[in-house]
Order: sequence, then C-alpha cells, then structure tokens
Amino acid sequence: MAHETAHEAPAAARELVERHGATLESALAALATRDYWSPHPESPRGYGEPVALDALQDSELLLDQPGTDGRVGPDPEQGGETSPYGPPLRVAYPHAGDPGLLVAAARAAQPAWAQAGPLVRAAVCCEILARINSRTPEFATAVMHTTGQAYGMAFQAGGPHAQDRALEAVVCAYAEQTRLPGTAEWTKPQGKRDPLRMTKEFIPVPRGVALLIGCNTFPTWNGFPGLFASLATGNPVLVKPHPRAVLPLALTVQAAREVLLEAGFNPDLVLLAAEQPGEGLARTLALHPEVRIIDYTGSTVFGDWLEDNARQALVYTEKAGVNTIVVDSTDDYPGMLANLAFSLSLYSGQMCTTPQNLLIPRTGIATEAGPKSLDEVVTDLAGAVDKLLGDDARASALLGAIVNPGVLERVERAGKGEYGTLALAPRAVVSAEFPQALIRTPALIRRDAGDGALPDECFGPIAFAVAVDDTAQAVELLRETVRERGAMTAAAYTTSPEVERAVVAACLDAGVSLSLNLTGQVYVNQTAAFSDLHGTGANPAANAAYCDAAFVASRFRVIEVRRHS
Amino acid sequence: MAHETAHEAPAAARELVERHGATLESALAALATRDYWSPHPESPRGYGEPVALDALQDSELLLDQPGTDGRVGPDPEQGGETSPYGPPLRVAYPHAGDPGLLVAAARAAQPAWAQAGPLVRAAVCCEILARINSRTPEFATAVMHTTGQAYGMAFQAGGPHAQDRALEAVVCAYAEQTRLPGTAEWTKPQGKRDPLRMTKEFIPVPRGVALLIGCNTFPTWNGFPGLFASLATGNPVLVKPHPRAVLPLALTVQAAREVLLEAGFNPDLVLLAAEQPGEGLARTLALHPEVRIIDYTGSTVFGDWLEDNARQALVYTEKAGVNTIVVDSTDDYPGMLANLAFSLSLYSGQMCTTPQNLLIPRTGIATEAGPKSLDEVVTDLAGAVDKLLGDDARASALLGAIVNPGVLERVERAGKGEYGTLALAPRAVVSAEFPQALIRTPALIRRDAGDGALPDECFGPIAFAVAVDDTAQAVELLRETVRERGAMTAAAYTTSPEVERAVVAACLDAGVSLSLNLTGQVYVNQTAAFSDLHGTGANPAANAAYCDAAFVASRFRVIEVRRHS
Repeated sequence: MAHETAHEAPAAARELVERHGATLESALAALATRDYWSPHPESPRGYGEPVALDALQDSELLLDQPGTDGRVGPDPEQGGETSPYGPPLRVAYPHAGDPGLLVAAARAAQPAWAQAGPLVRAAVCCEILARINSRTPEFATAVMHTTGQAYGMAFQAGGPHAQDRALEAVVCAYAEQTRLPGTAEWTKPQGKRDPLRMTKEFIPVPRGVALLIGCNTFPTWNGFPGLFASLATGNPVLVKPHPRAVLPLALTVQAAREVLLEAGFNPDLVLLAAEQPGEGLARTLALHPEVRIIDYTGSTVFGDWLEDNARQALVYTEKAGVNTIVVDSTDDYPGMLANLAFSLSLYSGQMCTTPQNLLIPRTGIATEAGPKSLDEVVTDLAGAVDKLLGDDARASALLGAIVNPGVLERVERAGKGEYGTLALAPRAVVSAEFPQALIRTPALIRRDAGDGALPDECFGPIAFAVAVDDTAQAVELLRETVRERGAMTAAAYTTSPEVERAVVAACLDAGVSLSLNLTGQVYVNQTAAFSDLHGTGANPAANAAYCDAAFVASRFRVIEVRRHS
Repeated sequence: MAHETAHEAPAAARELVERHGATLESALAALATRDYWSPHPESPRGYGEPVALDALQDSELLLDQPGTDGRVGPDPEQGGETSPYGPPLRVAYPHAGDPGLLVAAARAAQPAWAQAGPLVRAAVCCEILARINSRTPEFATAVMHTTGQAYGMAFQAGGPHAQDRALEAVVCAYAEQTRLPGTAEWTKPQGKRDPLRMTKEFIPVPRGVALLIGCNTFPTWNGFPGLFASLATGNPVLVKPHPRAVLPLALTVQAAREVLLEAGFNPDLVLLAAEQPGEGLARTLALHPEVRIIDYTGSTVFGDWLEDNARQALVYTEKAGVNTIVVDSTDDYPGMLANLAFSLSLYSGQMCTTPQNLLIPRTGIATEAGPKSLDEVVTDLAGAVDKLLGDDARASALLGAIVNPGVLERVERAGKGEYGTLALAPRAVVSAEFPQALIRTPALIRRDAGDGALPDECFGPIAFAVAVDDTAQAVELLRETVRERGAMTAAAYTTSPEVERAVVAACLDAGVSLSLNLTGQVYVNQTAAFSDLHGTGANPAANAAYCDAAFVASRFRVIEVRRHS
C-alpha cells in the first residue's frame, strides 16, 4: 500500500506508519467493499469502567493554547455548560480575545504537516483516533452530559461510531490524495528520434486553515468527519464547538494535540475555539480570509448564511430537513411497528435522521394479517411506542434528555394539541438517577394531506401520521418534501414491486437515500461508516455526504513539478 | 472492468460498451500511471485530406434544435463569425429566443441518460469522441478560422489533444462514479444471535443541467473537459460558445447529438446555445435555477461574476493569470533560449499558459559557457526569437493570427514602447496564403522590479524581461505573483539544488505547477492529458484542474437504497 515513503517525517511519525499500516489497509478495503467493518468495538465491554461525571467536572482544559487571554466557563454565565441531566459541568476552556491569533497559530503549524505527506498524516490521525478510542468512557460521559443522549447511545454514537466516521474520512482522504502517483516517468515516442522523457512529481497541498463548527446533539459523530478530513489532507483545524457541547470536542482537541506533539508536529494544527455567550465566534472565524474550509452541522438559517457569506472557503453543510416515510403495505406488521416505534423514540427524535412525516393512505394498508385501516395503523403505532416506553427506566435509557429549551417548548406545544390531533400524547418520564432531567416520550399527531401543507421541520420527539389519498400521492409528497425542504433520510414499507420502483425513482429524482422495509434491528436513523453514506448532498438538507470522494477531494490540490529525465 | 452491466441500456449503447471497453480500460490505467498515452494520433497523417475553409462556409448547423426561433449568423451583424485570417465564415446556427426552452429540452432528456449508468455513458462519450476524431481535419480548419491558431496547432491542440483531454475527463468521471460498488452485502455480527444482513445499492445521480461557456482561443481544448465531465456523469449540457468561436463547438454538438440519437438517447442531452451580438446569453443561462453546473474559461471579470452570482450551480472557472519564469542559471544556454523563444512565440503568446514575466538577476546568470550578464541574456533571448521567426512562412506557421482587436491593440501599444523599453519590437508578418491575417511576433520588454509593481496580465505576444536583485527576490516575486494574480504555469532554470528547492517550495506554497529546466521539445505552455494536470485550482487563475477527482466528483451524487437481505 505504502507507495509513499515516510523517510522525511519525524521518527515518531514513522513509527506510527508502522503501527497503523494494517488498519489503513483494512479500512481502504472496507471503503471499496462496503461490508461491515470497524476497528472500534461498540460494546462497552473492554473499554474499562465508566467515567463518572464528577471525574470530568471542575477541570481546566487546554488553557495553554496560543492566544488565550481568558476563559470560557466554568460558570454558566461565562459559557460553562450545563448538562441536560441537570448538573453544571464546571469546566473551563481557553478564550482567545483575538481569534486572529488562533488562525495565525494554525497557519504557522501548517508547513511541516503539509510536507509530511498523506501517509504520515493518515497514520498520525489513526493514532489520534486510537487515543480517543482508549478514552471512550470519558467521551461517553462528556457526550451524554452535553447532548442529553442516554449513556448507551452516547457511548456508541459518540464513541466507536464517531471514531468509525472519523477513520472513514481519514482513509477516504488518504485514498484521494494518492490517486496520482508520487512520481511518474513519461516517455513519448518521437518516431525515429529519441523519445521525449520527463519525470513528474505530484504533490498534494492543503487549502489552508479549516474551521469545524460543531453541533449540540452529535458533537463527535457529526464533527469528526470534517475535522479529520481536513486534518488528513494537510489543513490545520480550528474547532468551534456548540456552546452547549464544548467538552466532547475539547477532549478531542486535547487528544489530537497530545499525539501531534508526540509525533513531532506542532500541536497548533488543532485548536479549540470556544466562545463566551453571545460572542458570535463562528461568524467571525467563518469570514476570516485565511479560513479556507468550513464544516458545519446545525440550523438551516446559519448554514445558508455560511454558504452565502463565507465565500473565501469551501463550505460543507448539514442543515435541517423533513424526513418522510411512505407506508404502503408490509408483510411484517409487528416488525414494522416495532421498528418505527424505536426510530421515533431513539434520543427523543432529536436526530437529523429521525423520521417525522409518516404518509399513510386513508384507505389503509395491506399486511400479512389482512388490511389495516388508517386508524388501526396509527393506533397500533401509538401502542407500539407506548409499549416500548412503558417502563420509565427503559424509556430513559432510550430517550435520553431533551437537549435544549427550544425542543422542550415544541414538545409542550405538541402536547397541547397545537400541531394537530394527538394520537399519542408526549409523556414526561422521570429518571431515578437524574430527577432533574427533562425526558419526554414522542408525540404522534394526526394530520391530513388534504388540509394543506405538510408539517414543516419540527425537530424533537414529534412525529406526524399524515393521511394521504393513496400511495401514489404519498410518493409524490415524499418527492416534493425532499426537493423543497430537504431530507437526511427516507424510508418506505411496501410489498409491491411497483410501489418500490416508484419510491426508488422518487428518491433518485429528489436526491435522498432510501431504507426499504426495515423491520429488524437496523433503523432508518442510523448509518454505518465504511458502508452507508450519511446524507447525499443532493437535496437542501446537506451539500455533502459522509463520506465520498467529493467530501475530501477538494480539501487539497495537487501541484506538479516536472523536468527532463 | 465492467462491474456494471449494461443490460437495461438500448442495444446500440450496449454495442458501444463492447466497442470502447478496451479504450476505457487503457485510459483508466494511463490515469493511474501518468505515462504517455493517447488513442488519438497527433500527426495529420492518417486523418485524410485537410478540409478547406470553403467546405465549411455557407452552411447551416443544428437548425432543427428545440427552441429555435431564429438564427445566429451567417451575417457578422447577426453573430456570424469572421476568421482571424480574414474571410467571414458565413455559417448559420440556431437561435433560441427563449433560452428556457433549451433548459427544458435538456431536462427532459436527462432521466434516461441518468438511468443508463456510468459505463454506458462512458462508452457513448467514447463514441462521440471517436466520431469527432474521425472529423479532425474539419475541426482543425474550424479551430484555425475561429481562434487564429496556425493550422498545425489547430490540428493538434484543437484535435487529438483536445480529444485526449475529453477522454481523460470521461474516464476520470467513470472512475469516480464507480468507486462505490453498484451493490454491496453488509453483514454485521451480533455475537450469538444471527448477524444483521443488508443489501445496499449505490446509484450515482446527476446534478442537473450543465452549462459550458466556451472561450475564443481554445474552444475545444478548454471546452471538452467540462462538457464531457458533465455528460459522463449524467448531466445534459448546454454549450454556449464564445461568439467568435462557435463553429468548433457547433461541430462538437452536432457529433454528440448524432451519436446520442444512434445510441438510443435523446439528442437534446447536448444543445448549442449560440447568441446574437450583445445578447448576454451566458449571464442569462448562468442564473437559470435549473442550471446546476457551469464550466467557464475566459476573463477574470466574468469568471468572478459567475462565482459570485451563479450560486445555484457548481462553478468551475479558468481565468487569467500572470505566468512567471525564474531564470537563475543553466547548463544548456542555447537550449534554454530556444525553448523560451518557442514558448513566447507559439500562437503569438495567446495561451493562458504562455510565460509573461521572466525574472532575471541584474547581476546576470551562470551558464555552461560562463557567466552571462542581464543584457546578454535579454539580447540573446531576443536573438533567439528573431532567429526562430526570421522566415515569414515559418513564423506564420508558429504564430498564427491575432485572435481579436483587444490583443492587437495591446501589441501595438507594446510596439510603441508604452509598456517599457523594447528589447525586441513586435513585427508584422505577412502570410502568403492569408494576406489579410494580422500576424505579430512577440514584443520583449525590459522592466526592473525596482521600479514598482511587476507587469500585470498582458494577454498576447508581450513578454517582460524583469531585472531583479537576485534569485531570492525572483523566487519571492514568483510566489507573490501567483498568490495575488494567479498563474496557470511557472517555470525555472537553475543548476543549483538549493535554488530548485526554494522554487519548488514557493510553487507548493503559492499553488502553481512548475516546469524545471525545459531545454528540449517540451514547453511550459503545454500539458499532456493523462499525465500533466492543467492548472491547480490552488491560485486565483483557476478554481479547478484538468483533470483530477475534484473536477468530476461533485458533478454527481450517490443515492443509497438499502433493505434487509
């Protein structure tokens, strides 16, 4: 694999190439086959004891970063985080009064990293991920107490699954940077004369400083792909976390800086850019002329602003959408209901991939147990959710806590019937361990497509069972919704090959990936690195996908040097 | 190679897959090795008799295109072209009073093309190129009489070399569209339980309508990469030629439509969008909401306008730059002079890759024949140009004609000394065959870096010998020039490994490809498809390169469909 030698890199970096060569090779193979693969076990077994919140509280992180002239946190008034489960985190982070100093420090670190080449960079990134992986219990607790995810989900999605997505980006970046050989001989015949001979070098160079703007709900899972894609292609990265979810990315920056320093590089290749309340640091950094790449996950309003205004940068955005499911027919009615109930409940629907609008023919659907009327389907789905979440302890472990006041307000309005007739009212669940946590079961609301526009994005535990005339109308509404409002996911249940073809055609046309007839332990909300793409970049919800060539190929450019042989 | 079957494509398209499979395979291999390769012989031998201009004159092309409600040309007042060699072309093209009809026709053609898949599309593109290749003499004459290139250059650069760049784009697009397998099985172990099994399809889908905005000087060479990259990735293409260089792209559209129809596809996948004088059609089409990809070669002003305003589209631009050569030392002084003289003279310097600013230490340079003073170098270079172009017939065959009045005006101002002291005055050359043609040898102008800013872009046969303090200053000026004004090429002459390292570092830093010590039959202006990259996308002269993954990877998106196995 190593078509590139690492002889100019520091000895420590060369050792990392040895250490992670096999992982890189397996990962490259996985990228091509798309079968299941991960070097990061997803079970908490083997990761050691859980890390309690108080082991993370009352700490100071990264205060020695360049440009630091103050602190973010530990007080909530100064930007300190408060867990959705109640307690304040009381962690202090560095604050740079002049964010330009962060940009300057990052730029100063770039040349040696750029020169190290794709293989050394990939190996160093692998070591950062190995370090992060070994600290998974710590990350799990940090993710749980910033996002409100339940511990199990915070562990998996915030730990190994996020690490998988990061490694995927690293390997994808490595593959794209090595499509051209490092050196090539060119020999052009000239008839009877001597051939022309040239020696050509192809050298990938970074774009410049990258900016990651993190999100509240999945700081690592959604943050790692852009961070590692930029870093692996030679760009220093400023990590601007969401003010409510600083800790997981601060731990990430800490691990990255440690490894970079040990490997002989300037740790300022990765810098935390935390902000005090109301500072608007993302805007300031996004418009800095030296910031050349931006990765963003969050609201459509700010994503659109970035795309419109950060013109000096490549901007990769994941924004909001309306995820739709077409329910036409099934040969496993209980399986469908259980799968849907889980998808709606997981992390209280606070995933960009959670389904929201379930389109069901008002004439009902066919099942293996005979026809079910619309009312039956809606009632049975409500029953499945109720059953899944009947036990408070189990419900807490699936729902997690409401992440922020905006979501809480929406679910309370839903509970009052403001979004439509309730088929299932949201219910407050009390956690024995965290009585302060705001935990809510999903609301299921009845709507009718005949009454006007479909529900727009309603982020949180709020789903709509929408009566439609027939499946054909459902498919058209799916298409329209994806085109006009965007979607991260789409799903359909049907036993009809004809309906399946129509749904597939609509999804190809509108640009959304499709999960068909999920009735088991795979859920429409979830995608697996090295196999599934997350997003498509083909509809308004996102302009990029984790992780295809387009996600990495423009983060670097190739410079050619040629001379006579 | 064919991991994808073509069983759903029309029979004629399947036959093309058979016919061009071997070419595709060889081209894929060439892309990876970057050795010399081309299926398009560059010698006129074997292409049959030249096609005289009058065989092309007085014709009507493509008047049956949808949306046609008038004509462009044949009169010059209605947009008909006039050869830089004198005669009017008197060719009529279709005019669409409502350009939206072209967009609508293109969109209507898209679905079947999108469905055909990457392999069939690649094969159909290969057939279009085979058809174009077989008409190379016709294209040579069309390129010559629209661009002013001499016949030999119009033949090679406008014919086989342009076809090479097109095929490179087709194959690069094919490679990127097939990075993911068409279908994958995913099996995730679940301990003692049955594994989870999913079947996943990965389906590339096009972005939408593409727009090619052609240039005056290299309508095919610079137009083909974007056109074929978009077409091969499933997007219909509107071809908006430069008003002075319609014919070569009209012949291209004609060949493409013929082949598409024969292969069972809607010919409206490729449409000519010619305009009447002053219509501003490029602007109108560039802002059309359905236009999703734009490829442009031309002025910086309009390129910047496109980047700023065509926000609904991916915009690939090649604009203007200032190409610089650092002259430090050489071990082949005559070879260097001859190589530079040729580079400055070829097509009267009307290439985006022609060197303009030659930076020479005022203390002179070291050569194998001892030191040469600055004056000697400049005088010897002027002498080399004079010698190369001493014979009018030979000069005509190298220089071609001045492409448009703007260039003529600049070269006349240069001749009057308005840009600086003349080391070599431009000379009018008279072609026996085309006495009306405006043919000019290059002006070589002396400047001093101490007198202020370096010369800005001065497109045409105008080069500057710029005295600098020393090579170190030359390297810094190269870096600054590339960063601030952009460059398509850079070159250096040096026998010093240290200087070479400094120049390479500056080029990597500023983002321009470098030709070192060219003294033979390879020129800084020229790049070879399948081996050299054209442009880097890393400096202001261009935001993309022919042809890397980044040039094609975003022209399509991948939609995933997954279901339980």
